[in-house]
Amino acid sequence: MSSLTPPPVPMELHAGNRRKLIDSIRRHLTSSDRPLHGFVLLQGGEEKTRYCTDHAELFRQESYFAYLFGVREPDFYGAIDIGSGKSILFIPRLPDDYAVWLGEIKPLSHFKETYKVDMVFYVDEMIQVFDEQFKGSGKPLLYLLHGVNTDSSNFSKPASFEGIEKFETDLTTLHPILAECRVIKSSLELQLLQFANDISSEAHVEVMRKVRPGMKEYQMESMFLHHTYMYGGCRHCSYTCICATGDNSAVLHYGHAAAPNDRTFEDGDLALLDMGGEYHFYASDITCSFPVNGKFSSDQSLIYNAVLEAHNSVISAMKPGVNWVDMHKLAERIILESLKKGSILTGDVDEMMVERLGAVFMPHGLGHFMGIDTHDTGGYPTGVERPKEPGLKSLRTARDLLEGMVITVEPGCYFIKALLVPAMENARTSKFFNRETIERYRNIGGVRIESDLVVTANGCKNMTNVPRETWEIEAVMAGAPWPPVTTGNNSTK
Amino acid sequence: MSSLTPPPVPMELHAGNRRKLIDSIRRHLTSSDRPLHGFVLLQGGEEKTRYCTDHAELFRQESYFAYLFGVREPDFYGAIDIGSGKSILFIPRLPDDYAVWLGEIKPLSHFKETYKVDMVFYVDEMIQVFDEQFKGSGKPLLYLLHGVNTDSSNFSKPASFEGIEKFETDLTTLHPILAECRVIKSSLELQLLQFANDISSEAHVEVMRKVRPGMKEYQMESMFLHHTYMYGGCRHCSYTCICATGDNSAVLHYGHAAAPNDRTFEDGDLALLDMGGEYHFYASDITCSFPVNGKFSSDQSLIYNAVLEAHNSVISAMKPGVNWVDMHKLAERIILESLKKGSILTGDVDEMMVERLGAVFMPHGLGHFMGIDTHDTGGYPTGVERPKEPGLKSLRTARDLLEGMVITVEPGCYFIKALLVPAMENARTSKFFNRETIERYRNIGGVRIESDLVVTANGCKNMTNVPRETWEIEAVMAGAPWPPVTTGNNSTK
Repeated sequence: MSSLTPPPVPMELHAGNRRKLIDSIRRHLTSSDRPLHGFVLLQGGEEKTRYCTDHAELFRQESYFAYLFGVREPDFYGAIDIGSGKSILFIPRLPDDYAVWLGEIKPLSHFKETYKVDMVFYVDEMIQVFDEQFKGSGKPLLYLLHGVNTDSSNFSKPASFEGIEKFETDLTTLHPILAECRVIKSSLELQLLQFANDISSEAHVEVMRKVRPGMKEYQMESMFLHHTYMYGGCRHCSYTCICATGDNSAVLHYGHAAAPNDRTFEDGDLALLDMGGEYHFYASDITCSFPVNGKFSSDQSLIYNAVLEAHNSVISAMKPGVNWVDMHKLAERIILESLKKGSILTGDVDEMMVERLGAVFMPHGLGHFMGIDTHDTGGYPTGVERPKEPGLKSLRTARDLLEGMVITVEPGCYFIKALLVPAMENARTSKFFNRETIERYRNIGGVRIESDLVVTANGCKNMTNVPRETWEIEAVMAGAPWPPVTTGNNSTK
Repeated sequence: MSSLTPPPVPMELHAGNRRKLIDSIRRHLTSSDRPLHGFVLLQGGEEKTRYCTDHAELFRQESYFAYLFGVREPDFYGAIDIGSGKSILFIPRLPDDYAVWLGEIKPLSHFKETYKVDMVFYVDEMIQVFDEQFKGSGKPLLYLLHGVNTDSSNFSKPASFEGIEKFETDLTTLHPILAECRVIKSSLELQLLQFANDISSEAHVEVMRKVRPGMKEYQMESMFLHHTYMYGGCRHCSYTCICATGDNSAVLHYGHAAAPNDRTFEDGDLALLDMGGEYHFYASDITCSFPVNGKFSSDQSLIYNAVLEAHNSVISAMKPGVNWVDMHKLAERIILESLKKGSILTGDVDEMMVERLGAVFMPHGLGHFMGIDTHDTGGYPTGVERPKEPGLKSLRTARDLLEGMVITVEPGCYFIKALLVPAMENARTSKFFNRETIERYRNIGGVRIESDLVVTANGCKNMTNVPRETWEIEAVMAGAPWPPVTTGNNSTK
């Protein structure tokens, strides 16, 4: 059922992340003539219950904490001594009856061993430990995590504990530095991201093969989640699965509780499946679009190939130094050109670009950083401004690419009534629309093609491996192997 | 793959729940000479993001709100006019770009139709609506939900909104009445609980059939979740799956993030699987215990049959008027007797009962109410005291049974080091233990057998349908059909 098995998780990965942070903080402090004393202190996530009940929600670690410590359990604190580089975990002191209900109470040494940190203490020893370990003068200094997430506009919650007023705290230094550390992935991080991609690619193919008209959208979600958990050990998915068919494909974030993947799809529908498994906190984010009956119609092919050409052209152009806004515009231009070739649009494409017509068909950004969060940190550091134009303002980054960034490439082309109608009525843009043709395409909903790319020294590498050409998709849905069997080679999957 | 399909969800169910509440409140107000004016007002759940990110957690409605209104979407308010009995939903006014990202913005009439309420307005019209609809004198009176959940000790959050200070509010009347309404299930509620049980029973059987030594515990979880979602439309499970094998079976709430069903199990292990799907908010809660290699050893049979006899005896004894603490003690006694027969314990069982020896082997309560919450409301209304003795204090209710209650019967027998060692060292209880025999059983971990029962006029009905006798389990694991094929009848499953 799968060619994959979940790889071991090297805790060296998180030690590497900590070293990177400390190097970066030290450079920052040195450059501003500040002493190399104090502690980075993060508070891990806490377990939550469902409203007032005792229904425990499945815990998932806070992402910054996961990045630095890889800890799976709730209610930890973690610190790094900026002077010595030593890492310290603080674990909750569990009540005796924990052993009856929740499992063996493990000694401090267990966590030192498991998470490969230098020291482990109980949370209630935190004040004492900081006092003893601090090598500077005056009150021990704690660097806490406080800053805005540029995708949600929410602020991270700085660590807090009883007695924190005994310490000096710094709320401004850590966040931008740590957010930036997460932007460039290490080779160990890339291995986990690759596995999340491998198992999720395989699961997408599995779903394609099993889809039949008359099924419910959520059955595709169920098959995907099962494959990534059963064979990939992915207990969490990176985000709620979007399993849209027919008109629903034009709803960009379909699948949530108010639109819960509950349509029965029919012969002739396109499916747009945006689904990714998470492995040891590391995400994948993959979208496949295909006809549920296994055969593209010519209209479906036209839209699909417009998006595929945008997807492939962007990937061909990506390399360090390239600006992401330019990549977005490249994708827009290719899609507009294809729509013109298909007689859906008419007129001058340069003029369409000036009028931001691309944003009518692709209102979302071309792609986003991906790591421990699906929408990973660092999209808009100080000095990088968010564009204001339609479409471009939805970009989650406007940066130049750097080697080691992981970013999704996810062009799409949608027929969204709420955008099309105003654009067709607008005096400046109405002339571009071929009304007769566009009506025919309205029921297609939308197409999105999304792969996860890592930027390399000279270009980029696609971590996603699913059939993309229409003929590849049709072959796989008809039972052909994937990846294709190489002739003269007996490898099969 | 399944004999079941998800049944339609009748919104009449929630209308019935509302009528029941209003009848009950009116009786209460009348008996205390208070006017029949004012509104019951509940605030529905809000969507949450993962920490500071824009990762939206899959929304699940707050249970009291789900009970009264059946609403799947976040950010609603719901009210019932105590005078007229009329129901009002208040829905959020969505921004225009919701249509692009999250789906069609539906008109008020859509929600009136979908949820079968009398009136629908926007949340920002709430003050005006209450002012207009209120028939009493003075400020309109709002009955808000405020009270303790006796399982979690958490308080429900009373509705709040901008301008609430313009109203008179009552925080004490509603909670006990509404919690009590949920205790006795209507026939429409029972139908959904039965479906959740049917699909989850079938999924348990599916897992039993596919288990092989050498698998990971979480693979059983994955198979279960897939079956209940794929064929039962259960997007949520009632609680985090407990998939314990070997020693882990002695950890009562195994499966959470710090003990994440990640053991590779081996030939000779027992599995204890506590898993239930949730259908349209209504829970199931089923535990099966079985040998992963498909054959009970004689030691495993002894413990298993001790628990099964307790399970069956309780079910035979259950009927209206029976006290739940007595049922717990009945289960304890049967288990102790079996352990004595098996030479694990020695001495007088009455004396063991006095010393609360049963709580060493079954530290949890015999069962709990089940409905929209797995641990449903109403276990300890005013006047029912929680027992203080070991084992009994874990009971989630100490009430007399009433027709229409749904309650789990889940006796267990565990070899928990943290309880056994102190009991074997305790001067009053050490004499009961046969040290040589008990060592042999330690590696069994534990056995739990859990079914969901509805109390009927003369007894009870078991909603759960899984193989329970050791020979039934062995036959099903070897491929026999379940439910068994009746001879002279061509029905198969």
